[in-house]
Amino acid sequence: MGRYRIGIDLGGTNIAAGILDDSLSLIAKASVPTKAPRPAEEVCRDMADLCRRLCREAGGLSPEEDILSVGIGSPGIISGGVVLRADNLGFRNAPLVLLMSRLLGKPVTLRNDGNAAAYGELVAGCGQGCRSLVAVTLGTGVGGGIVLDGRILEGCAGGAGEVGHIITHAGGRRCACGKRGCLEAYCSATALIGSTIRAMENNPDSLLWEAARSTSLVNGKTAFDAMRLGDPVASAVVEEFILDLATGVSNLINLLQPEILCIGGGISREGETLLAPLRAKTAGLLCAPENSATRIVAASLGNDAGIIGAAAAGGLNAGDARHGDTMQGGFL
Amino acid sequence: MGRYRIGIDLGGTNIAAGILDDSLSLIAKASVPTKAPRPAEEVCRDMADLCRRLCREAGGLSPEEDILSVGIGSPGIISGGVVLRADNLGFRNAPLVLLMSRLLGKPVTLRNDGNAAAYGELVAGCGQGCRSLVAVTLGTGVGGGIVLDGRILEGCAGGAGEVGHIITHAGGRRCACGKRGCLEAYCSATALIGSTIRAMENNPDSLLWEAARSTSLVNGKTAFDAMRLGDPVASAVVEEFILDLATGVSNLINLLQPEILCIGGGISREGETLLAPLRAKTAGLLCAPENSATRIVAASLGNDAGIIGAAAAGGLNAGDARHGDTMQGGFL
Repeated sequence: MGRYRIGIDLGGTNIAAGILDDSLSLIAKASVPTKAPRPAEEVCRDMADLCRRLCREAGGLSPEEDILSVGIGSPGIISGGVVLRADNLGFRNAPLVLLMSRLLGKPVTLRNDGNAAAYGELVAGCGQGCRSLVAVTLGTGVGGGIVLDGRILEGCAGGAGEVGHIITHAGGRRCACGKRGCLEAYCSATALIGSTIRAMENNPDSLLWEAARSTSLVNGKTAFDAMRLGDPVASAVVEEFILDLATGVSNLINLLQPEILCIGGGISREGETLLAPLRAKTAGLLCAPENSATRIVAASLGNDAGIIGAAAAGGLNAGDARHGDTMQGGFL
Repeated sequence: MGRYRIGIDLGGTNIAAGILDDSLSLIAKASVPTKAPRPAEEVCRDMADLCRRLCREAGGLSPEEDILSVGIGSPGIISGGVVLRADNLGFRNAPLVLLMSRLLGKPVTLRNDGNAAAYGELVAGCGQGCRSLVAVTLGTGVGGGIVLDGRILEGCAGGAGEVGHIITHAGGRRCACGKRGCLEAYCSATALIGSTIRAMENNPDSLLWEAARSTSLVNGKTAFDAMRLGDPVASAVVEEFILDLATGVSNLINLLQPEILCIGGGISREGETLLAPLRAKTAGLLCAPENSATRIVAASLGNDAGIIGAAAAGGLNAGDARHGDTMQGGFL
């Protein structure tokens, strides 16, 4: 039998996939556009083609003999091998495990993409050797995932791990989800860009203008760059952002106390500029000094976390693999 | 071998204990004052005496032959059989498992009291037949516990499950813990009493005055009573309280999505008067309609939850029992 696993990170824009060897290293990687929204059957055909292409590009692996399983990470609410709802894919009740196992004749597992990425960081990234990790990913929104005792926390109906939508500021800023005061409305890259632009508009002399040139060129790095230039307005923007993030992070630690809490997404590339004050502010919000056992670190796998986690989770919580285990089909 | 387990709920005021039979029914119960603060050795001697007394009162059970294990629920941060810190007991690094297993010669387990109560509700209360439950207890503070996949979530250093200290109102009301904006500062009975008194002071004509007679007699029931008398001021107090509680509850569901989320403490005796609007407001704060799979119910075991959970957890996460398993000692 084979010793490789395929992981697929199904995103709203691209489908990225890779082959993982048994040391959890990616030996091949490729992607195609998702072209969402379109029917799940069409998306699955492209994902299956991508798997076959990867096998060829990885030096001619035999899908039948070399591939153990296929794991998919998808946005949205996932339960029982079905994407119940994923707005950015246009999916409602899309039975991806059934469709993919028919196309490939392999055990197929399906996870929420945030959960898959968290699992990837645990097994092959910043959480190696640990059993529990919570990931917080700062991007267009705030995503994340929870792994406890080596298992992805999926919840009783696939809805757990919505880290970005815990409410930290009741009655506060409107979130993209329609609610008010979600962590995402304060700590996404989008939120940081908004704070940066507001600060620029209110402070025509700020060095933020030098860092960004114009408000339309502001990104998640602008405030950090201007802070490094010595701009106090930028420092205040960054400080407020980190305090809000510390509020969310402290909630996660006070509730779950994982061994690792990792911060991912573009903003995490600021490294210790972000992490050192985040640790200090979080420590002030924990219930007891003993709770500081959780290590706050940067995610280390970048965009590969989802592929690696989806692939590595192939053998985990095996209930999800029931279609794949029993379906017959041709991989090629 | 015996078929009974002893559970001890070690509180700041009283030590309550009971004997559980193998159908998880309490067949005997007793309590003694804690007399905190005093040394852990003295508290343990009283707990051991209480165990012996319970055996006699339960019709003369033989501690050696009839008792399988002793489980303790204690306030504070617990790790490795030790109470690292419990301010209301005055404990620092109190090795309760070691002390009690020496005194009793039985396997002893130690849990946080909120976790023990949550486990009790899962195995013998409102969560029977389920695998995951989050308990939120509205008392002087807001306590709670998390059970996932049939196991108590203790965290990597005993600090998980601090439900009352998730921040829902960043920068908001001062909490007893010293931070601002904790759920406890909005949803404890203490907080509700405070809101009720403020509403009375601002509204001399409110029927709250009729329900309570004077501000010094206000309790967690006053606002609900005046609401039943038709008082709009009281209705507003209750509505705000329930909205704040829904914020905390939605955070727990969006993160953990347990099968059961149970509300305990005196205020939970309001039953559907509390729960029906709580469910409605929580539903509006969930990430997706699918997340409403969690059932929001009243806790059903009252003050016995801690005893039952501590006893029933005797066989769980067996690492904690390592002292008890190997220590020799005389139960009587």
